[in-house]
Amino acid sequence: MTQITPDDLQTFLTDLDAAVRETADWDVPATYIPELAEVAVNQFAISVVLGDGQLLSAGDHDTLFSIQSISKVFTLACVLGRIGDQIWTRVGREPSGTPFDSIVLLEREAGRPRNPFINAGALVTTDALLQGRMPKDALSELIQFVRASVDDTDIHIDKAVAASEKATGFRNVALANFLKSYGNLTNLPDLTLGTYFHQCAIAMTTDQLALAGRDLAGLTDAPGLISSQRARRINALMMTCGHYDGSSDFAFRVGLPGKSGVGGGILIIAPGKASIAVWSPGLNHYGNSKVGAEAAHRLAAFTNWSVFSR
Amino acid sequence: MTQITPDDLQTFLTDLDAAVRETADWDVPATYIPELAEVAVNQFAISVVLGDGQLLSAGDHDTLFSIQSISKVFTLACVLGRIGDQIWTRVGREPSGTPFDSIVLLEREAGRPRNPFINAGALVTTDALLQGRMPKDALSELIQFVRASVDDTDIHIDKAVAASEKATGFRNVALANFLKSYGNLTNLPDLTLGTYFHQCAIAMTTDQLALAGRDLAGLTDAPGLISSQRARRINALMMTCGHYDGSSDFAFRVGLPGKSGVGGGILIIAPGKASIAVWSPGLNHYGNSKVGAEAAHRLAAFTNWSVFSR
Amino acid sequence: MTQITPDDLQTFLTDLDAAVRETADWDVPATYIPELAEVAVNQFAISVVLGDGQLLSAGDHDTLFSIQSISKVFTLACVLGRIGDQIWTRVGREPSGTPFDSIVLLEREAGRPRNPFINAGALVTTDALLQGRMPKDALSELIQFVRASVDDTDIHIDKAVAASEKATGFRNVALANFLKSYGNLTNLPDLTLGTYFHQCAIAMTTDQLALAGRDLAGLTDAPGLISSQRARRINALMMTCGHYDGSSDFAFRVGLPGKSGVGGGILIIAPGKASIAVWSPGLNHYGNSKVGAEAAHRLAAFTNWSVFSR
Amino acid sequence: MTQITPDDLQTFLTDLDAAVRETADWDVPATYIPELAEVAVNQFAISVVLGDGQLLSAGDHDTLFSIQSISKVFTLACVLGRIGDQIWTRVGREPSGTPFDSIVLLEREAGRPRNPFINAGALVTTDALLQGRMPKDALSELIQFVRASVDDTDIHIDKAVAASEKATGFRNVALANFLKSYGNLTNLPDLTLGTYFHQCAIAMTTDQLALAGRDLAGLTDAPGLISSQRARRINALMMTCGHYDGSSDFAFRVGLPGKSGVGGGILIIAPGKASIAVWSPGLNHYGNSKVGAEAAHRLAAFTNWSVFSR
Repeated sequence: MTQITPDDLQTFLTDLDAAVRETADWDVPATYIPELAEVAVNQFAISVVLGDGQLLSAGDHDTLFSIQSISKVFTLACVLGRIGDQIWTRVGREPSGTPFDSIVLLEREAGRPRNPFINAGALVTTDALLQGRMPKDALSELIQFVRASVDDTDIHIDKAVAASEKATGFRNVALANFLKSYGNLTNLPDLTLGTYFHQCAIAMTTDQLALAGRDLAGLTDAPGLISSQRARRINALMMTCGHYDGSSDFAFRVGLPGKSGVGGGILIIAPGKASIAVWSPGLNHYGNSKVGAEAAHRLAAFTNWSVFSR
Repeated sequence: MTQITPDDLQTFLTDLDAAVRETADWDVPATYIPELAEVAVNQFAISVVLGDGQLLSAGDHDTLFSIQSISKVFTLACVLGRIGDQIWTRVGREPSGTPFDSIVLLEREAGRPRNPFINAGALVTTDALLQGRMPKDALSELIQFVRASVDDTDIHIDKAVAASEKATGFRNVALANFLKSYGNLTNLPDLTLGTYFHQCAIAMTTDQLALAGRDLAGLTDAPGLISSQRARRINALMMTCGHYDGSSDFAFRVGLPGKSGVGGGILIIAPGKASIAVWSPGLNHYGNSKVGAEAAHRLAAFTNWSVFSR
Repeated sequence: MTQITPDDLQTFLTDLDAAVRETADWDVPATYIPELAEVAVNQFAISVVLGDGQLLSAGDHDTLFSIQSISKVFTLACVLGRIGDQIWTRVGREPSGTPFDSIVLLEREAGRPRNPFINAGALVTTDALLQGRMPKDALSELIQFVRASVDDTDIHIDKAVAASEKATGFRNVALANFLKSYGNLTNLPDLTLGTYFHQCAIAMTTDQLALAGRDLAGLTDAPGLISSQRARRINALMMTCGHYDGSSDFAFRVGLPGKSGVGGGILIIAPGKASIAVWSPGLNHYGNSKVGAEAAHRLAAFTNWSVFSR
Repeated sequence: MTQITPDDLQTFLTDLDAAVRETADWDVPATYIPELAEVAVNQFAISVVLGDGQLLSAGDHDTLFSIQSISKVFTLACVLGRIGDQIWTRVGREPSGTPFDSIVLLEREAGRPRNPFINAGALVTTDALLQGRMPKDALSELIQFVRASVDDTDIHIDKAVAASEKATGFRNVALANFLKSYGNLTNLPDLTLGTYFHQCAIAMTTDQLALAGRDLAGLTDAPGLISSQRARRINALMMTCGHYDGSSDFAFRVGLPGKSGVGGGILIIAPGKASIAVWSPGLNHYGNSKVGAEAAHRLAAFTNWSVFSR
């Protein structure tokens, strides 16, 4: 296969953005968080950081969006940094076969969530990040980590989104209290929930998000906050559990590890080759960005970056 | 990273075989198929076909074993060849989050199995392979496909194993009749079951199995029976669903697509780099080869072939 | 409350039959057994045996129908006679909270059915009735028991119905093989299934069925085949588990123990007062006779026989 | 059968109390509510109100205990009085087949609890009792209802128990928030929960509790707060759903409608004959009073009050 040049890729991204603008059906944003439901739906952005650190983008790549569940990747990385493999005593590493906010398996498996990327599992990693500290200290550590990953101090939590989710996130309150009833939260549920809602409300652009994935992709100019062994394992989890019930479908179509958020963003890792972020707020029935997943599919087809290809 | 030479790798495999022989706990073979329960447990084999077609092996690489569920990969490939993506109307592509022989989700999801690598899903692909033909015609097509993949006409079905499974496979009889009750079998359950038990009883050596994986790995001298796009997708399914409930754990530790069988074999694909087969009959609690999975883990660490590494 | 005379009751039954004939929506018979699907739907019968042995009836009380799951009561009574409380080691006594042919709980609870009135539980009691005998010997014992209960030697199995169910009862074949896989069948599944399909195909009239319930109701001229303690317990099970998922609704509306069958019959026990049989082939969404349940409701309101009334 | 005289019954109760005191294994009280865990375990009381209003008792019948889930019967009666059958649009009437605090079916059935006697269902009836009012107004109505039922103004809520449950009732917090996420709570979860914890903390003696059951039993001197039709239906629900997963077992052994609480009390109704209350704080594995259920069994055997007997 002939090598794709950065120029070729930039042309592809620009064309892709133009093509996406023709989309008839953008689908609808998450409605269960009022603040997210108001986001204009016909938006799209894509950013790619290449192996040499070059950043290419197209579309609304300067627009901030709520990263939501993508934050679970950063929290997991922080917690692995703090307590290492000990976290796996409290949360599993297997796909759940159920929707992201399901409580069924949690009861069957006595309060041990299947993996850190479903809501219940992320509540456990957030709880481990707190570890007796005040929420603002834990959140501060997380934000510092994200800023260092991007090399940009201008990354913040959108407090209106956090408040909006706190006011309506009954399902997550249920999950946290359920975990507590099984003894798998060390903090009071409200403390863990407050931290969780804030962590999900981090606002980023696709440019920032793509830069934040450099360690996971093992790019040459990555900041080195995540060891290569740890990056490999996080990538594996993103591949098998990163898109909830639609994880295998994403693996099947795109062939790259990714983590989606209900804000419409997806962080995608092409190990050794690129870190990619896409965004479009309308969600498919799995709760993943509809147009974003489609764009990822086309990018993978163009670049042949699938980890399952020769 | 410096390139590993075939000589380095052969030395590693020979050492690995010697190390494995020191194993204190081989675990026990599948007990629910009497014929398999009798296999001596302290056996091990590993075979690797490299990109240039070179075959390296160590241990009992000339010993025949029952490939069991690994056959599901070949059946799927045949069925995709026969009817293409149409098969996905009858079977899904997502991990089940339940054991390989679970019937729970099948009831919840009205007879549509989660993926073609759990037993229920494989019964559906076997049923599609039959497609109104006599079992012997369908099995003949499958065996020809496997022989062509290996380039070896000396591959057969072990009829004693097929008969043993037929006599005791009540769980599979239940699954097939359950599928039929939902209208997701086109043949009578007994016909599909007979074909299924025979397909699982194909006997191969690790040398043969590694050779059979060349198309999936996209190696240069592969026979070309599976298109590269189709290989990429089958690899994705093997990554997310190839080890039942332990799929994500395998992805996490080994980082390569694989498909295990209760006979103790595992077929592992390193896209563009190698096709690998390991075998050891003792099974861990997921129903996958204990020593085989451990050997795969060490091989991946040595070669850095994980698809999640840069 | 003033006593209802037999004359009052006969007038009520005759009027009820006339009123029922005006029914606009008889609903549809069971479709999954072809032979039952052909039964004319606009039929209705009701028979009541009073404390003094007097038999009152109205409607098609001489028409034979397939008693189907009502046979589970007779099989349970026979098995309790043969092996006593030992049967409870193999089957529970609790409502399942799931449909009559569900397999989900059977997996969760490792092959021990919730109660003897769901299909899985009845397969276990049928298996216990067989106890190593040939099906014809077990069936002969059961038929003798039913004939003696009714005091009528002219009761038979409808072989066309048994054959029809055998040809299409994939769900029951699944359940039997599932039980066998957990070791909770002592006979081969096909043997137990054959016996089960025949037992369900017993044909009776409502007159015969009402007479067969005299022991359970503890009426003065009852044949005495079931002890009063055993009758009390079987009645309790009929109350909590006799109508599958609709058991509590029947208890709530009718207030009497009952057992329904997909042939459209219901046996209803008013302890110390009456044994009642109703029949109408159309089924509601729980799989119980729609018009039959409605008639039972009106009879209970008229007589105030509910066990929950003062 | 010869009639049992009040004197016979008093002798039986006195003897029963003496026999119970010999109990070797009282089992342990509910541990998940700290305040209840401290109750001395070797206590027992039984009270029986006969048809003519005569009150017989034995044991610790003047000792106050926390009625806990028995309050669900009174809340249901109040709500049926306020809004009638409308409540059945929000909660079902069928046994759940799962433990009292299970959340699994709630997810499968989209937030509609199976019946008003499991925790989720009782949260819904409590929510309906609130109906936009302040908790103290709803609780006041409930307490007035209970006092009028007993004809005793000296009945109170034990605030230490309510506070204890509030501090540790994470499972119930989870259930309430889960219901809210499905839109099946009209008040904020905390408001409904606060009311629920207080209602469960009503303290009564067995004498008071037995008197409170007179309307359900349809005794001649009952206060008439519940119509006979409504009483019949509540009794039916107590029979099929009153002891959670152990309901059918209670029906099978005792043969009377009953409602248990984790405080160790059971209210038992013998329609037209008696209202019975038993108490002993140690619980069996279903969460029902171990010694209390045993005493009920012996009382039923002595009196032959089972509704399933002639």
